[in-house]
Amino acid sequence: MTFDAAIAELTNLLGDRCSRSKSDLDTHGASETHFPPLPPDAVVWPDNTGEVSQIVKICGTHGCPIIPYGEGTSLEGHTSALRGGVTINMSRMNKVLRLDPGDMDADVQPGLTREELNRDLRATGLFFPVDPGANASLGGMAATRASGTTAVRYGNMRENVLGLEVVLADGRIITTGSRARKSSAGYDLTALMLGSEGTLGVITRLTLRLSGQPEAISAAICSFERMSDAVEAVQQVIQMGIPMARIEFVDTDTARAFNLYAGMDFPEKPHLLLEFHGSERAVAEDAKRFGEIARDFGGAGFETATRTEDRNALWTMRHKAYYACLALKPGATAVVTDICVPISRLALAVEETRADIAKSSLPGPILGHVGDGNFHAVLLIEPGNAAELAEAKELAARMSARALRLGGTITGEHGIGMGKLAQMPDEHGEGWDVMGEIKRALDPAGILNPGKLIRGN
Amino acid sequence: MTFDAAIAELTNLLGDRCSRSKSDLDTHGASETHFPPLPPDAVVWPDNTGEVSQIVKICGTHGCPIIPYGEGTSLEGHTSALRGGVTINMSRMNKVLRLDPGDMDADVQPGLTREELNRDLRATGLFFPVDPGANASLGGMAATRASGTTAVRYGNMRENVLGLEVVLADGRIITTGSRARKSSAGYDLTALMLGSEGTLGVITRLTLRLSGQPEAISAAICSFERMSDAVEAVQQVIQMGIPMARIEFVDTDTARAFNLYAGMDFPEKPHLLLEFHGSERAVAEDAKRFGEIARDFGGAGFETATRTEDRNALWTMRHKAYYACLALKPGATAVVTDICVPISRLALAVEETRADIAKSSLPGPILGHVGDGNFHAVLLIEPGNAAELAEAKELAARMSARALRLGGTITGEHGIGMGKLAQMPDEHGEGWDVMGEIKRALDPAGILNPGKLIRGN
Repeated sequence: MTFDAAIAELTNLLGDRCSRSKSDLDTHGASETHFPPLPPDAVVWPDNTGEVSQIVKICGTHGCPIIPYGEGTSLEGHTSALRGGVTINMSRMNKVLRLDPGDMDADVQPGLTREELNRDLRATGLFFPVDPGANASLGGMAATRASGTTAVRYGNMRENVLGLEVVLADGRIITTGSRARKSSAGYDLTALMLGSEGTLGVITRLTLRLSGQPEAISAAICSFERMSDAVEAVQQVIQMGIPMARIEFVDTDTARAFNLYAGMDFPEKPHLLLEFHGSERAVAEDAKRFGEIARDFGGAGFETATRTEDRNALWTMRHKAYYACLALKPGATAVVTDICVPISRLALAVEETRADIAKSSLPGPILGHVGDGNFHAVLLIEPGNAAELAEAKELAARMSARALRLGGTITGEHGIGMGKLAQMPDEHGEGWDVMGEIKRALDPAGILNPGKLIRGN
Repeated sequence: MTFDAAIAELTNLLGDRCSRSKSDLDTHGASETHFPPLPPDAVVWPDNTGEVSQIVKICGTHGCPIIPYGEGTSLEGHTSALRGGVTINMSRMNKVLRLDPGDMDADVQPGLTREELNRDLRATGLFFPVDPGANASLGGMAATRASGTTAVRYGNMRENVLGLEVVLADGRIITTGSRARKSSAGYDLTALMLGSEGTLGVITRLTLRLSGQPEAISAAICSFERMSDAVEAVQQVIQMGIPMARIEFVDTDTARAFNLYAGMDFPEKPHLLLEFHGSERAVAEDAKRFGEIARDFGGAGFETATRTEDRNALWTMRHKAYYACLALKPGATAVVTDICVPISRLALAVEETRADIAKSSLPGPILGHVGDGNFHAVLLIEPGNAAELAEAKELAARMSARALRLGGTITGEHGIGMGKLAQMPDEHGEGWDVMGEIKRALDPAGILNPGKLIRGN
C-alpha cells in the first residue's frame, strides 16, 4: 500500500516541510534499541496546531498511518513506522507559549525538550522536575507517561501535566484539564492521553506544573559490598520517609561501564547515587540520616557534593549510563527492561534478575530509579544475532513475569510500544481489551500509531 | 417502564438483600442538596465482586439502570435514580482486604468509609489523607475524584489511588493499576475510572496509597478584617511554598453560622483555619512563617493548637460547615457551588463571587480549600421555591463562567452528576463529546448511572 495521494496533498499544504528524502525517512525509522529500521513514507514538520489537524484529516481520508515524533529517544519502538505512513515531527513546535511564575505553571509546545524548558526557566526560580535522562521532547514524555530520576520526589508526567491540547484521529482539536490544580469535571482525559503513545491523538500543547528550585541541593554517592545491601538500604530510606529527590542504583557492571566509558575511577561495586533538595539545614540533615542508614548496610565512601560542577558530573554520567553500558560490548545494541515493583519486593526482584542474567550468555548491567521500585537491565546483544535477541527477550519476559508476581508492572516508565505487547494480557487481562475498545471508539480506522500498545492495532 | 423481571431475578439471587420497601427506596432516592426525591425501583446490597457482576448482568439483560451508592453524601445528585432502576448499595463490602505498612498501601472494599479506614490504621502509624469532610465511602470518593481539606498537601483521589477493581457494564471484572508506585503500561484506566461517577463501571475494590502519620501536627486559626486580605495571605503562603497540610477559608457569614450552630464565639469576620504536619521543629517553623505573613495582611488572633482535642474541635466544626450554613436559614436546602481557579486568580474569584451574591436575594456563605484555589458558596434556598432555585442556579452558572474565564474549572471536587451538565460544554467543548464516545464504547446500552456526567446519557 502506498500513500502517494496523501503525501501529495501534504506537500501542497506544507511545501518543503514534507519530505520523502531517504535520509529523513531513515532517521525517523531508526530505533534507539534493538528494533529493525522501519522508515515512514514521508516526514512532515507542522508549525502549529491547525496544521497538525489538517495533516491528520488528510491522512485520515487516505487511511494513511500517522506516527507522532518528538526526539526519537523512546526505547520500545514507539516511533517506528511499522505500517509505513507519515511521521509528524513536532520539533518546530518548540515554544514556551505562556509562563506564570506566580501560579508555577506554563503552556509549552510538544517539541520543546525538557532541557530547553529548564534553560528558559532558570532565571524564574522554577524548574520542570521530570527527568528521564535523555533530552526528550515534552510531548514524547507525555505520550509515554515518562518519569526518571526525580519521580521519587516530584512524581512523573501524571503528576506534572495539568492539561493538554490534542488533535484527535478525525482532526478535532480538544483541550483537556485546566490551570486549576484539581478538577472533578468529568472523565480525566488528560490522564487518558498521558501514556497513550500517540494511539489516541497528537499532543499539540501541554500545560505543565512547575516546581520551585530548591534552596539547596546536595548530591551523594556511596558504594556497597553487595547489591542486596544497597537495595535494602533504599527500602529502609523510603520506609523511614527521608525525602530523597533522587536515589539511583547502579550495579557492579554499570560502575565498570562508567569507568570504561567516561574514564571514571569508581570502585567496581554496587553504588547508590543520591540527591537531596530543600533548605540548607534540611538537606544536611537528610544526608546525615541517609549516611547513617548506608553505614548500617556496610556502605563506604559516602561523600556529598554541594558544588554544582560536581553534581552535574555525577548526573551527566548517570544520564549517559545507557551509552556507557552499550560500550561494554562493542557494536552492541540492547533490549532494555523496565520493571517496577512495590518497594518491599525490590531487593528480591533485583536479586532474582541478577541471578537470571548471570545464568545467561549476555551481559546485562542493572540500574534504576530504585526509590520508586523501578529498575532496568540493559541486555546487550549483537545486532542481527537472532539467538541473542531471543535470549534477551526471554530474560525480559521473565523479568516482566517476576514484576507481576511481586505486585508490580512490566514497565515503570518506558511504555509498551511494539516491545511489550506480548506481556500486556498478563498485566491487564481483560483491561487490555477495554483499552482496545476505547481506541476503536476514538480512532475507528486505526490510523494513529498503528501496531503500538493496543492488541491487533 | 418497570423493571419487575430484573428485580425478580435479583431477589432470586440475593433474597432479602434486594429490597423494594418504600423506606429503602426513599432513603436511596434522597439528595443532600436541592434535588427532588428520585427513588429507584429496588435497592440491592451485594456481598462480593461476583455478586456485583451478576447484578450488573441481570440489569443489563433487562435494560435496567444501575446506580452505585456509597454513603449518599454526594452533592450533585449522583445517586438519584433519574430513570428508576436498581441502586447498588455497597455498604456490606466494607472490609480492609490487605494492609502492608512496609509498602504503605492497602486494598479496601468500596463501602468502607474514610473514617473507618483511618480508625483501622491508627495503630500502624499510617493514615489515608484525603478528607472531603463528610464520612464518605472510599468507593464514592473514587467515583467523584474527591479531595477536601488536605489536598493542598497530599493530593486528591487521583494521587492516592494506585489501582481499582471495576465491574463493567457487561459484567466483566477488570483490575486497573498495580501496587507499583508508577507504571507506563498502557492507558491509565485507573485515572479514567476515578471521577467517572458510576457511568463506566462499579468500583468493587481500591488499592490505596497511605501516608505516614506526621510526627507533629499543629492547627491554627486567624481572623482578618477583609476577605481579600485573608485570600491574598493564602496566595502569598502558597507562592512561598510553605507546606500547609490544610488551609481553609471561611467568610463572615460562615463564621456567624459556626457561632449559631455550634455555640462558638468566633469574631464575625473572615478566617483562615490551618494545619501543619511535620517534625516538631518544621511545624513550629511553618506556623511562625505563616504567622508573619498573616500579620502582614492584618491577621489577628493567630493562635496555634497542638493538643489533639483542640484540633479535633476546630476540624469537626469545619466538617460540619455545610450543616451550620443550612441552619442560617431554617428549613433551607442549598445549591452548593465548587469552583477551582489558579491561585493567582483566587482573590479576584472570591471577591467577584461575594459581590454577585450580595446583589442577590439569597444568603450564600463562602468557604473552601483555598490552598488549591477551590471554594464553595452555599446558596441557601427554600425547598420547593422555584424562583429561589432559579436565582441560585443563575448565581452558580455565573460562578462557573467566572472560573472558566480565570483558567479554572467548574468543579474542584464535587463532580458533575445532574447538577453541572449545563456547564460541561463551556469547560470541555468537544472534549465532552469525547467523554460520550468513551461512555458509549464501554456501556452501549447506557445502563450505568444514566443522566449523570455525559450529554444525553
